[in-house]
Amino acid sequence: MSVFLDSSSTTRPFDEVILCIADTMKNYYGNASSSHVFGFESEQILRRAKMTVLNFLHSSNGDVFFTSGGTESNNLAIFGSINVRSSNNIVTTMIEHFSVLNPIKKFESLGARVKYLKPDSNGNISIKNFENNISEDTSFISIMHVNNETGEILPIKEFSNIIGRKCPDAVFHVDAVQSFGKLPISVNELGIDLLSASSHKIHGPRGLGILYVSERTKINPIFLGGGQQKKIRPGTEPVCLIAGFEKAIELCDIKNRLKKIERLNSYCRKKLNEIVGVNINSSKNASPYIINISVFGIKSEVLINFLSERGIYVSGSSACSKNKQSHVLKAMSLPKGFIESAIRISFSKFNTLDDIDVLVDNLKEALKIFSR
Amino acid sequence: MSVFLDSSSTTRPFDEVILCIADTMKNYYGNASSSHVFGFESEQILRRAKMTVLNFLHSSNGDVFFTSGGTESNNLAIFGSINVRSSNNIVTTMIEHFSVLNPIKKFESLGARVKYLKPDSNGNISIKNFENNISEDTSFISIMHVNNETGEILPIKEFSNIIGRKCPDAVFHVDAVQSFGKLPISVNELGIDLLSASSHKIHGPRGLGILYVSERTKINPIFLGGGQQKKIRPGTEPVCLIAGFEKAIELCDIKNRLKKIERLNSYCRKKLNEIVGVNINSSKNASPYIINISVFGIKSEVLINFLSERGIYVSGSSACSKNKQSHVLKAMSLPKGFIESAIRISFSKFNTLDDIDVLVDNLKEALKIFSR
Repeated sequence: MSVFLDSSSTTRPFDEVILCIADTMKNYYGNASSSHVFGFESEQILRRAKMTVLNFLHSSNGDVFFTSGGTESNNLAIFGSINVRSSNNIVTTMIEHFSVLNPIKKFESLGARVKYLKPDSNGNISIKNFENNISEDTSFISIMHVNNETGEILPIKEFSNIIGRKCPDAVFHVDAVQSFGKLPISVNELGIDLLSASSHKIHGPRGLGILYVSERTKINPIFLGGGQQKKIRPGTEPVCLIAGFEKAIELCDIKNRLKKIERLNSYCRKKLNEIVGVNINSSKNASPYIINISVFGIKSEVLINFLSERGIYVSGSSACSKNKQSHVLKAMSLPKGFIESAIRISFSKFNTLDDIDVLVDNLKEALKIFSR
Repeated sequence: MSVFLDSSSTTRPFDEVILCIADTMKNYYGNASSSHVFGFESEQILRRAKMTVLNFLHSSNGDVFFTSGGTESNNLAIFGSINVRSSNNIVTTMIEHFSVLNPIKKFESLGARVKYLKPDSNGNISIKNFENNISEDTSFISIMHVNNETGEILPIKEFSNIIGRKCPDAVFHVDAVQSFGKLPISVNELGIDLLSASSHKIHGPRGLGILYVSERTKINPIFLGGGQQKKIRPGTEPVCLIAGFEKAIELCDIKNRLKKIERLNSYCRKKLNEIVGVNINSSKNASPYIINISVFGIKSEVLINFLSERGIYVSGSSACSKNKQSHVLKAMSLPKGFIESAIRISFSKFNTLDDIDVLVDNLKEALKIFSR
């Protein structure tokens, strides 16, 4: 038996999603851009899925583009809406995912001015910090909703209000890869212009993401080709993946799932607090889906391997930056020893209290063995 | 019963491919970049698939990157290997797919010099035409292997020899979306630096493509993020799609399938030649997988709809450029009437001689009805 506590890296696809993909591949393999009826059936699946996503985000008049995943969505948001030729004043944070930080660094190297906001020791960006760094010159803002390493929830609504007041023409991009399907999101209420999300983080298929684009926001493609998806995202649409993603959304019972995850989280925190040698790095404000901890004296990779050998799967900082020290925990100014020994525990609806007991027992054993 | 004669747009996935994807989603959903054993299992699938692709292409020392499809692969080849800052002399043809033409036009707008080679009336580029337009200044060449509208096979080997003689440092990109898995390809023998292919054209899953990169060729990513795929193509790898694509490759019995398709093609040509009012636009040199015809006096979209209502699926110029007149047939200088009435018939191993009889009977009926 294995204990999968790494659901912020990726999730186990729902059986219904797998069936839906298999069925779509078998029966609706027409090219959605074909003129014949068989293509039209695929196009209908596309249209319906698009509406499902827009409704799920409570969008009244935005648009959605299907991409190959969260990384492409973030790149499309940034490269697609920042104009290289105009003067750019970009505001982001030091704790973004590399698929946001690296595109923005690229613009910086081309002459854009960029402010990387430093988080507090909880990993959050204070409203004051944000406000102090926003000016009427600010043209593009990219802030994640939930941090992928700590689970910290950033005050998107408050940031949005400040943007509306100080630089209403700026484009506001939110990387919602870790919140989509987990916390309720209303793009209209939150005043979001661009929102990225990923399918495989919510029990949908790998290889699919979305970029939501508000009505007022203009974006350009990052690659060019045929006329698919209004030329913003050319390439034959992966209708089977899109149908599977739609199914995963339909199965997102956010409210009840959140309740379950909150129970797991409280239980886990209580148990972890009882272990001498474990520090919980995630703040109380964090999304219940993620708990970041440091286990003193045991380097992350050693502990991950130790647990992995026992069938317990957790991650270091994030799967995308394997074997690197966390830039997020560094930005939070955590002590070196905490950073070197940090692991991320992340939940899904498939986890049980037993999973946590197994984890906790093995953490205790690891501490015994490695602190000899 | 439907008759699917549009396999150059997309193909029916093999049952084995669907099963493989479902199995991988169920049992190997670990993130290939995760440090734990469960991630390692996914990474193994990735590595094995990569070797399968390289062996299939008879590559001795190249590399393969998994992308979201043929369009992204072509963009990665072009945007990833042409340096904006250096002076670029690009050679391509007028008959490339838009995912090659549009990126190259982008470079042209940024100052690159581009030669678009005009095809002859067969849709081919003569060796002399190619040679006359290649010089020691040529830095990048992009030529498709098989044209997606006519099936014309371009003399890649001969072009490669000329490149080796006149501009050995130039990068040679081949869009092999319509030949990969259909005709034998040896990248070493053909002297190809970059090769694009798509999974869903060979009964694999939608949403996956590859870019082969020879050892001597340097490419940069077109989007940025984590450390996956040597940072050339970041983003969580869609292991289930990659496994499904590998399965499709394993099922590619190129030689025997080609024999079958050749029989279908000869039979179809013979039957079509008997119909007064039908002109075969594809040359005798074309890939047997594609026959492009014009049906006099019936506009393409009218005929496609007529056939579609009868459960027969063919396409106009290509699915990617729906409702547009073919730039390929125009470049071949076909008469306007031919271009307006062109449809593409394309085969797969699932087609039978009966399918062709049904098509031919209905073409005859269409000619009767519409030429009244």
